Amino acid sequence: MLQHPVREYLVAHREQFLEKYFELLRIPSIANSEVPPGTPHPTQTTAEWLVDYLRNIGLQGEVRQTAGRPCVVGSAHVSDELPTVLIYAHFDVQPPDPIEPWESSPFEPVIKDDAVYARGASDDKGQLFAHLMAIEAWKKAGGELPVNVKLLFEGEEEIGSPSLEAFLTEHKDELSADAAVISDGAFYSKDLPSITYALRGLLYLEITLIGAKQDVHSGRFGGMLANPINSLAKLVAGMHDENNRVTIPGFYDDVPELTDTERAEWETLPFDEAALTEQLGVDVLAGGEKGLSALERCWGRPTLDCNGIVGGYTGPGSKTIIPSSATVKITTRLVPNQNPQRIAEGFRRFLDDNTPPGMKSDATILAKARPVLLTRNSPAVEVAKSVYLQTFGKDPVFIRCGATVPITELIQRIFKLDPVLMCFGLPDDNLHGPNEHFALDQLWRGAEACALFLQEAASALTTPKG
Amino acid sequence: MLQHPVREYLVAHREQFLEKYFELLRIPSIANSEVPPGTPHPTQTTAEWLVDYLRNIGLQGEVRQTAGRPCVVGSAHVSDELPTVLIYAHFDVQPPDPIEPWESSPFEPVIKDDAVYARGASDDKGQLFAHLMAIEAWKKAGGELPVNVKLLFEGEEEIGSPSLEAFLTEHKDELSADAAVISDGAFYSKDLPSITYALRGLLYLEITLIGAKQDVHSGRFGGMLANPINSLAKLVAGMHDENNRVTIPGFYDDVPELTDTERAEWETLPFDEAALTEQLGVDVLAGGEKGLSALERCWGRPTLDCNGIVGGYTGPGSKTIIPSSATVKITTRLVPNQNPQRIAEGFRRFLDDNTPPGMKSDATILAKARPVLLTRNSPAVEVAKSVYLQTFGKDPVFIRCGATVPITELIQRIFKLDPVLMCFGLPDDNLHGPNEHFALDQLWRGAEACALFLQEAASALTTPKG
Repeated sequence: MLQHPVREYLVAHREQFLEKYFELLRIPSIANSEVPPGTPHPTQTTAEWLVDYLRNIGLQGEVRQTAGRPCVVGSAHVSDELPTVLIYAHFDVQPPDPIEPWESSPFEPVIKDDAVYARGASDDKGQLFAHLMAIEAWKKAGGELPVNVKLLFEGEEEIGSPSLEAFLTEHKDELSADAAVISDGAFYSKDLPSITYALRGLLYLEITLIGAKQDVHSGRFGGMLANPINSLAKLVAGMHDENNRVTIPGFYDDVPELTDTERAEWETLPFDEAALTEQLGVDVLAGGEKGLSALERCWGRPTLDCNGIVGGYTGPGSKTIIPSSATVKITTRLVPNQNPQRIAEGFRRFLDDNTPPGMKSDATILAKARPVLLTRNSPAVEVAKSVYLQTFGKDPVFIRCGATVPITELIQRIFKLDPVLMCFGLPDDNLHGPNEHFALDQLWRGAEACALFLQEAASALTTPKG
Repeated sequence: MLQHPVREYLVAHREQFLEKYFELLRIPSIANSEVPPGTPHPTQTTAEWLVDYLRNIGLQGEVRQTAGRPCVVGSAHVSDELPTVLIYAHFDVQPPDPIEPWESSPFEPVIKDDAVYARGASDDKGQLFAHLMAIEAWKKAGGELPVNVKLLFEGEEEIGSPSLEAFLTEHKDELSADAAVISDGAFYSKDLPSITYALRGLLYLEITLIGAKQDVHSGRFGGMLANPINSLAKLVAGMHDENNRVTIPGFYDDVPELTDTERAEWETLPFDEAALTEQLGVDVLAGGEKGLSALERCWGRPTLDCNGIVGGYTGPGSKTIIPSSATVKITTRLVPNQNPQRIAEGFRRFLDDNTPPGMKSDATILAKARPVLLTRNSPAVEVAKSVYLQTFGKDPVFIRCGATVPITELIQRIFKLDPVLMCFGLPDDNLHGPNEHFALDQLWRGAEACALFLQEAASALTTPKG
């Protein structure tokens, strides 16, 4: 059980914590956003804010530049005799658009129905802030941290962590630890905490088809000139077959069949399809390959989804043109043991074979991340299980997740250390969508869980010297 | 030959004419555009400008309101003994976007390489203005107009003339004439004037597929939830078969086969495919049905082209969502005897049959116009032929056109009068695209042709009483 003064501190300072959490949420730290020359980028502002916070509670902290957006490295070394825990979260957020469906301003947090509404409230500033609260409580009320901590807060997770591999490789020694905790994700369901042991990877591509060198009159040229939108529709439609399997050459080559054990395990999980379809506002969960359950399709199988498409005239009313080009953004989500680089080669072959006459194609890789499968048996996982049971009153379930958190696979590959994913979001937090929110109870209990993790890690983890 | 003083006036006043033409081009009269409350719409401003012009040269003129954008009705009654000519052109223009490829501001006309660059320079303000010049020259230097004239200038042709049928029906008597001239289009090629005897009609639809009620995380739901962009791509791809024939139910039911006579006639027309592909910047003219020539596909066959598509995230970089919806704008160009209403019913059936599971579909008709086939034998056509030969030094060729000018079919149907299409644009004017322009020589000679048409109509046309 969490030491009483630490717990008391967390409860007594909720008002002050909320103030700081709101400050953090107000910075529109979208990694992609552009700012006028001479203006600090909001990810830089956020990184500086975090460093100030760390220093104010007695930790070391620095903004570190990468090839892309900055990150924050923090640390508190208590004793060589104690194990070291590396904590990861990210402070960049998804763009807020579409703005129209938001019921409050995405960067002006408000509390409604016991939840904080703002872009990043759950993903991932809320979960990052739970760790800050826990560390502060230990420093201010617990005498000292029960373990050594290292912190890595990233500023470009939402665009696929393009600079992270190089940064981790370069700072491998500085960031090495006995256990790593990643907080970025959600419970399996509202009352069922979970430990995610597999994440999908991704390959994010932007593909453009280019026809005439400029838009032309659709009456004068319709029937003569190939149309980039119609051509792109055909190209994208051709990426799935009649069973909704992806047709990119070699796509399934490295995908192992799901084991009966895993299938059976997933069947025991509560899955309320009616509640989910109602939450989403659809009448059926019709994505993915035919003949598989929804969880199998999302957790155990790779998928191909368009994230955006644009071409030609998109304003009000009509404009009768054949546009010059059309562009689609596509994510493939990859399962172990697929490799995004091999999938990219498959796309190259697909485009070579399927770019229609009269069109040129252009493809850019915007992000890639490998899938990851983690151990379910490690001292850190045991600590997380114990922490969830004590803090949320339930044994966690082991789940996979269809999403991607690039750091996970990088820590496993570069540090030879399987991190544990201890997350506090809920499945209906509207991650990446309008009206993102984070339940206050998840924040309060999440901070307790973070504090308890450090406490229990002290005895459960072996130190390099131990 | 055009009376000397009239011709002299046209040549002597080129500078003043250009000034007024530029004034007209500067008004951004996009029928679709929205203006702040209390601000006059630019189509209203343009209509008032035109009425001022008409009154200044001694004609009657009025701005007339319709259910949509205003139009201008003008007239000059010289004598009951003279025939009456109805002249039509439109003063609304296509939206200028995409703006980036424009080399000068679309609503700030400039002269470059002996052409005027501006949105609407050719389509259709330049051709409208040629008639104003001709009428002014007759009034100022010819003593009086050689015929009675009626003028109809439209303010919403580019959005499919939604209010025109009702307006013409209501003002049938007021606008009745012995001949009608429509100036909106282009020569067959630079040195080959042409009389268009058939235009395609159109049905313009906007179709939206709606999935989840908001954007959701593409990792967490990818494989569960059907994706509106992927679904729309499949839907649009399914609108053509492997021979690029349109698959909308009943689409070809009312399409007659082309006659050998027409085919043979078109084969005699010069068609420089290499020059056209170079002008367009493509390596092949790959649109339309397989196995037909480019002219057959564009003039004699109906087509289906997407004009715009949008869905999900379209900003820079990546955003990993499954969007809530995706929308496409589609024009079908229709040949005689297709009926846009029947085609719309075909789309309704197509959507009923092909909207995929997990999606709702929504379709809106944005515009429709019937195709038209005109007589090639009438006094007005004979006058036009004579005028072209005298003014441009070449006998015109008879052509069809893939585009749509709704007034044409409406005059034929409502007034029981086949208009003659006497146009002065050139095929490379970049109608509807960036850097639209109108060759000055086409403007000067076009005005002469308009003046000569009135002169020759006086004797060639029979009056109702004659």
